[in-house]
Amino acid sequence: MKASQYIKAGSVEYREVPLPEPGENEVRIKIAYCGICGTDLHIFKGHMDARVKTPRTVGHEASGTVTAVGKNAGDFKIGQKVTVRPLDNCGSCGTCQAGFTHICEKLRFLGIETDGGFAEYWTVPARLVHKLPEALPLKIAALVEPLAVACHDVRCSGLKAGDVTVVNGGGPIGLLIALCAKAAGGDVTVCEINENRLELARQLGFNTINPLKEDPVAIIRSASGGSGADVVFEVSGSEPGARIMTELARPRGTIVVVAIYAKPVPVDLHKFFWKELRMIGTRVYEVQDYEKAIELAACGTLPLEALISRVFSLEELQAAFEFLTQTPDAMKVLVQCNEVNE
Amino acid sequence: MKASQYIKAGSVEYREVPLPEPGENEVRIKIAYCGICGTDLHIFKGHMDARVKTPRTVGHEASGTVTAVGKNAGDFKIGQKVTVRPLDNCGSCGTCQAGFTHICEKLRFLGIETDGGFAEYWTVPARLVHKLPEALPLKIAALVEPLAVACHDVRCSGLKAGDVTVVNGGGPIGLLIALCAKAAGGDVTVCEINENRLELARQLGFNTINPLKEDPVAIIRSASGGSGADVVFEVSGSEPGARIMTELARPRGTIVVVAIYAKPVPVDLHKFFWKELRMIGTRVYEVQDYEKAIELAACGTLPLEALISRVFSLEELQAAFEFLTQTPDAMKVLVQCNEVNE
Repeated sequence: MKASQYIKAGSVEYREVPLPEPGENEVRIKIAYCGICGTDLHIFKGHMDARVKTPRTVGHEASGTVTAVGKNAGDFKIGQKVTVRPLDNCGSCGTCQAGFTHICEKLRFLGIETDGGFAEYWTVPARLVHKLPEALPLKIAALVEPLAVACHDVRCSGLKAGDVTVVNGGGPIGLLIALCAKAAGGDVTVCEINENRLELARQLGFNTINPLKEDPVAIIRSASGGSGADVVFEVSGSEPGARIMTELARPRGTIVVVAIYAKPVPVDLHKFFWKELRMIGTRVYEVQDYEKAIELAACGTLPLEALISRVFSLEELQAAFEFLTQTPDAMKVLVQCNEVNE
Repeated sequence: MKASQYIKAGSVEYREVPLPEPGENEVRIKIAYCGICGTDLHIFKGHMDARVKTPRTVGHEASGTVTAVGKNAGDFKIGQKVTVRPLDNCGSCGTCQAGFTHICEKLRFLGIETDGGFAEYWTVPARLVHKLPEALPLKIAALVEPLAVACHDVRCSGLKAGDVTVVNGGGPIGLLIALCAKAAGGDVTVCEINENRLELARQLGFNTINPLKEDPVAIIRSASGGSGADVVFEVSGSEPGARIMTELARPRGTIVVVAIYAKPVPVDLHKFFWKELRMIGTRVYEVQDYEKAIELAACGTLPLEALISRVFSLEELQAAFEFLTQTPDAMKVLVQCNEVNE
């Protein structure tokens, strides 16, 4: 079969690799689409070479259909539409034992620590495969993984209907969080400095603020009767984002750290004390978040198609990474790995 | 009556002031003891001159007996032992309306924004007065206010029996938190760099770590089967404290920011993401925390007497502040405001 493999910083190769046979408890999936995650882009740039062995087929935001079912892998029918929850946990560490298998202390992330979805076929543990409704287009289904991240973030935040909500950072994850928060009844404002992303956020129906031009704190206070935001999602990963999050939140408000910060940044702990703020970090998703994401994607009310900037072929993965590197306002980029008939 | 009043930075004056008559809904208390809080010391040093009008009778950790009851002030008997919850909230701001009256956006703190307890008598709103059991010595009762802070911190943390717990900072509030956490079933370690405070912590039965001599992260990981602390109370207000809190906490662990940080400090937000940490700020106390503190103080099982470093007379308040300034390992210092017969 063909796969596009990461070779070294800045270099991906489209090449012939062995077709992986499903072992016991495994399923082989014919990949329809596989989205490019920010993490994949980091790998492409060589930032994660210490963690990623080469050559490596990366990619973990996949949709497809079952083509082979290993022994004891469960009741999967050939042709069943599926997606993969790419978290292979150990089951025995303290964190797994405590029930938080998604942040297992020895987590193997499929498509990072193992081969992934930028290939014609992907063989994975059956327990990580989620069935999709037949009516859900496979192109949209490739967004289930990042949508599950957003579902996890919103669920963990405890957001309630009517909550004044700020999403700081209007990239793909930021807008998916905004959509989930709105679906949960939040009154959502997106803060972002890129005007093209702001325009998309407005088209999707959100209030928007460009913090380079307006004062988010004054606007959100005014929109909330003076107290501030009930929930702030920090998705920018920036120092200004870490500074403003404690100002935006109302007394007893919640801050959700979604972004991956490269280094420690100044945080106003006095505001935590003074306003009794709560801050939680959130990472990936749990089973229920995947189920919620599939349900949300399948019901068709979220404008997910609008988040897909471009689709490349499997052979073009190198070009896709270069496009993303050069296009700071691109949203989701998908890689089509096989012809799709649906 | 006599009061010791803050005049200007570094200067307190023992002087005659008018005896305050209780107005409607007010109670006048004959003060037995009033403890010196870190905030009072800040006021003495002139750090809070923007907030504190002079001359001002400060002090808010008071115990005493009722000597006069205003109209509609409730069923207080003359001689009833009481303490004061010094939080005069507005009742109408968004935060009061949301039920968090203790962090009211227009909070008046008795003894800071109004006159306080370093006086022979203190007249306060009756709704802020808590009755004490007759058997509770008034000297111990002067610790109810800081003990209520600790009860609030421990309650908000969600600490459960068996939780591996670190208190970073072994001053009066740190040790009171340690005592409350232990009373709630926590397995408590106190981190502190002052050897005299460490010695007291050991005498009180706590595990101790001096982070200048030992590695708290290695010790706590080893004590917790590798995962880290369930709950970390950050009471040091230091940069190293803010750095170590995210390392000490286990995945999904809780950090409680009790300390008052003078300025933003670097915080490792990546660890929040990676371990899905939760951090809450806590400030003062709610009614239920006062009730819990009175119950804990009255049951006599906590060694509260051991936390009292010294007792000064009302006339000696200037000397008491100077003693605290010059004695970095002092714990609670009380001011006796009247003769006590019990």
